Formats: sequence, structure tokens, C-alpha cells
Amino acid sequence: MICLPDDAAVAAVGDLGPDVDVIEWDGSGEPPPQFTDVEFWVPPYLAVLPDAATIARAGRLQVIQVLSAGVEPWLDRVPDGVTLCSGRGIHGSTTAELAVAGLLAVRRELPRFVDAQRAHEWEQQPRTGSLVEAPVLVLGAGDIGSRVATALRAFDAEVAVVARHARPGVHGMDELTELLPTQQALVVCVPNTPQTRGLVSAEVLAALPDGAIVVNVARGQIVDQDALLAELGARRLYAFVDVTDPEPLPADHPLWDAPNLLLTPHVGGGTIGWERRAYRLAGQQVRRWLNREQLHNVVDAGY
Amino acid sequence: MICLPDDAAVAAVGDLGPDVDVIEWDGSGEPPPQFTDVEFWVPPYLAVLPDAATIARAGRLQVIQVLSAGVEPWLDRVPDGVTLCSGRGIHGSTTAELAVAGLLAVRRELPRFVDAQRAHEWEQQPRTGSLVEAPVLVLGAGDIGSRVATALRAFDAEVAVVARHARPGVHGMDELTELLPTQQALVVCVPNTPQTRGLVSAEVLAALPDGAIVVNVARGQIVDQDALLAELGARRLYAFVDVTDPEPLPADHPLWDAPNLLLTPHVGGGTIGWERRAYRLAGQQVRRWLNREQLHNVVDAGY
Repeated sequence: MICLPDDAAVAAVGDLGPDVDVIEWDGSGEPPPQFTDVEFWVPPYLAVLPDAATIARAGRLQVIQVLSAGVEPWLDRVPDGVTLCSGRGIHGSTTAELAVAGLLAVRRELPRFVDAQRAHEWEQQPRTGSLVEAPVLVLGAGDIGSRVATALRAFDAEVAVVARHARPGVHGMDELTELLPTQQALVVCVPNTPQTRGLVSAEVLAALPDGAIVVNVARGQIVDQDALLAELGARRLYAFVDVTDPEPLPADHPLWDAPNLLLTPHVGGGTIGWERRAYRLAGQQVRRWLNREQLHNVVDAGY
Repeated sequence: MICLPDDAAVAAVGDLGPDVDVIEWDGSGEPPPQFTDVEFWVPPYLAVLPDAATIARAGRLQVIQVLSAGVEPWLDRVPDGVTLCSGRGIHGSTTAELAVAGLLAVRRELPRFVDAQRAHEWEQQPRTGSLVEAPVLVLGAGDIGSRVATALRAFDAEVAVVARHARPGVHGMDELTELLPTQQALVVCVPNTPQTRGLVSAEVLAALPDGAIVVNVARGQIVDQDALLAELGARRLYAFVDVTDPEPLPADHPLWDAPNLLLTPHVGGGTIGWERRAYRLAGQQVRRWLNREQLHNVVDAGY
């Protein structure tokens, strides 16, 4: 039995044949009685997660296919023997798009021009920065980081990519410290894991040169937010953040008024039309499972 | 004899050998007396252009190497037998960067989030548009258009390129009309020529579907600005324009207050550091000419 989050998902996944039962659960309240028979479960995006006891009721559960790129909240809820699959690929393109949008908006000073437009002010030949021929460090070599790197290279940015393990075209994490002092931007695209939490520390930020831009489209917990706030307050660095710690950011939080900052409310992934990609992936995965093919996006134990 | 615009250009071009005389003229007032002996002239960027009679004083002139991508104002000033070279490649990367910055800022609604940030408002899961898997038409297959296409494809936009002549990967201008009704964005990156003036007409704009975004980083004269204003006023289309007709845009011009519009004051090319690319090209071209090698960026008569 397959459990999908809503009618739209059922319609998008389409016909699975006469022998496959499909139920719906939107993740709220109690699961439907048939949940105990579910073998392949697609929980809704960004739902309040059921507790481990509720999940354990699905005694025949084999696969949990989530629709978010990040799986961190699920890690201690997945019963033994159940395969957890991430939504890698659903949000990567839109999140990379937002990272580039925000990074370029900051470097090309678009918020300033929004104000000038409202004031009907045509400044003669104002000069802004640019990432053309500028060193940019992308932290993370997954779907998001790879797309960001490709896009920025279209403008001749000199992109270096850093990830856990060095490989051709990718620097290892041990090279991060030596790369930082020459970068004009640091784009954070790593998953939120125990290893990445606080990775962009006060020391990392301090190693960036004056005027560099920090972009975080991953998770707020990866960047030392207090240290970032101090760098922004000193007007030494610039930043674009789509994620904060906590979320939602309280109205009285000092980050709102930090200078040199563009902030969006976690809009990287959930654009209009994202369900099309989400349910397409869900449908592909369900069919792979039914056909006993290899699942994609399996989250390994060493995540 | 070589004529360069300023000290910085002379320093950047560097030593040309003992037999090559170099003079400077910033383009203002009368040219220096030695201008009559100039064979290779690099006028300053965006200067007030000397009239044809002044240019004709340089009776030994062989090459004019301008530092702008557009050469339209020069066409009727170039003496017979003198080669005109454009600044293609100097501004392409920064202009493409701005086109993508503005296009994504509009589609991902960054101006709205600037306001929300100032108001300390964290909207829960707002959903914006995205160009992921969206059809986008890039008008112009030159340096700028090619870079825009590459960048947008990094986010899985379905980019079609239209130029004067069809070739592999590029649609001909005769296919424009049939392509328009499915596009979510039209990015204008063609030079300003008699053939392109008014090319993005009221009919072209009307053929775009509701909600599409028009981007103009080329020249204001290429788009029918009154027709664009009407489409924006009806809130049927969106736009990002870095160029207007006229420039500077008068403070009382209705375009300033058009809804759905992001406007910047012709900042595509002249970013901090653009001279490095400009004088690098000038130096390469001077050396090619001295070595009797083929010049790059030669503007042909059929431009």
C-alpha cells in the first residue's frame, strides 16, 4: 500500500495498476486506519513531523520518500530497516535560482535601485560591483551547488567548489581555510547535518576579505548567525540569507535591520509549480519500488 | 601613433616598444595637435562623440577601437577606409549578469521581500514564480545572449535563442512570432541597429502570454516603450529595463511609476573594474594591429 499526501499527488502519480492500493494522509492529526498497512509513504512537504510512535504503527513500512531536500528532522524518526529517500532534485533548481538571484541582487545593488526608481532618480553612471572574473566559493557540490557554479561561470566568475571530499573539480573541506581570504562571495549550499552545523563559523567569516558576500540558502544553523550579524553591523561583509535561526525570524530580531543584508523568508524551494517536480519524483520512486528497481536519493547511514 | 583615452589605459596597455608613439586624449574639447598623426585610436567610453570633421583631422587613421558594445553612434562618423572595432566582450559578461539579476529579481519578487524585510515581516511560505522548466526566449545570440542562455539553463529554464540568421541551436527572426505565445520571459540582447529599432513592437509584446517578463539590457529604442508601459499599466506583463528612451529618463516620465517594473539607470556594463577588461582588449587589439594580425570585433559594413 502507498500513502500519498493529497489528491494532487494521487493524480500526478497516476495509475499504478489494479494490484496497488493508494491512500491519502495530509500528515495532520491521526493517520488513517489503513496506515498500518502502508509500505511506501510520501509525507507532505514541510509538515509537522509525526512522532516515532505514530510512524511505528506502519509496521510494514519499507520506504519514506520525503519531498524536502533536507532530511535532518527525519533521521531519528526512521524505524530500523526502513529506507529514507530525500527530495534531492525537487528544490535544487529553484533554490539555486534564488541563491544566484539574491547574490546578484546584492552585488549589483538592486535594492538601492528599487529606492531610486521610487524616487524617480536616474543616477548618472553609478558603478556597482560585479562577480565577473571574481573569485567565488561555493560550499557544497550537490545539486544546488553545481547549478550555482554553472550559472556564475556563465559570467566568468572564478568559481571554486568545496565539499566534504576532494575530487576532480572539487576542493576538500581541508582546503577551505586557505581559499577564503581571496573570495568575493561564499555561497552556502550544504545539507544541515551534525558535521555542517556551525560550519560557517566566526573564524570562517573573519577569514573572508572586506566586502565579500555571504549567501545562505541552506539552513540557518550552518552559519554562526551572531557572528554574521556582527560582520554586517560593522559593514565589513554583505549577505543574502533565505534561511535563519530560528524560523520564522521574530519581529524583534536584530537581523532584520542589519545593514548590507538582503533577507527572504525561506522561499528557495517552494515556488509556484514545485509540486509538479515533487510528485513526478514521487511517482518515479513508487514505480521503481514496485518494479524492485534501485531507488534514487537513498539517504545512507553516514549522512 | 596610438591614441588612448587616459593614463590608466596607457599603463594597462603597457610597453609597445621603442618605435611606437602613444598619446592621450580624453575626448573632450579639441584633440591634441599630434592627433593628425594617429593611426590607431581608442576613444573614451561613453564620451560625447567628436564630429566627423574633427575625426577627419586624423588623416592617417586606420582603426577606431571603441570601448562600448554598441557602435551605432559611430557608424556615420567613421571615415572611408577606417576600420571600426566594437568593444564586444568588454561589457558582455557584466551586462548578461545584470540581465539575469533583474530577471530573477522580478520573477522571485525580491523588491517585495525588501519591503517585507524593512517591515520585519516573515511571511509563511509565500510562493513566487520561478524560471525553472519555464520557456524563456533570448533575443540575440551574441556574447550577452549566449551568457544569459547558459546561466538560465543552469536552472533548467527551457531557453530558445532567436537571432537574425537561423543556425544550429539558434532560431531565425522569422520564427519569433510563433515562439512568443509560450514564453514566460523575453530577454532582449540585440545591438541597436536600423533593423532592431522598434523590433519589440506592440505586436510582439501583445503576443506574449499574461505574466511574462520583458527584460531589456540592450537599448531603449529596441522596445516600443509606450506599448510596454501600456502592458505594465494593465498589469498584464512584467519588466526589467536597464535602458530607456530617452536616457536619462526625465523625473516626470510615467515609466518610473509603472507597476510590475524594475528599472535601473543603464548600469549593465560600467561596473567597478570594467576598465581592466576594456584596456586588456585595447592592448590586444593594438598589438594585433602592430603585428599586422587580424583584428577582432571588426564591425562590418552590413551591421
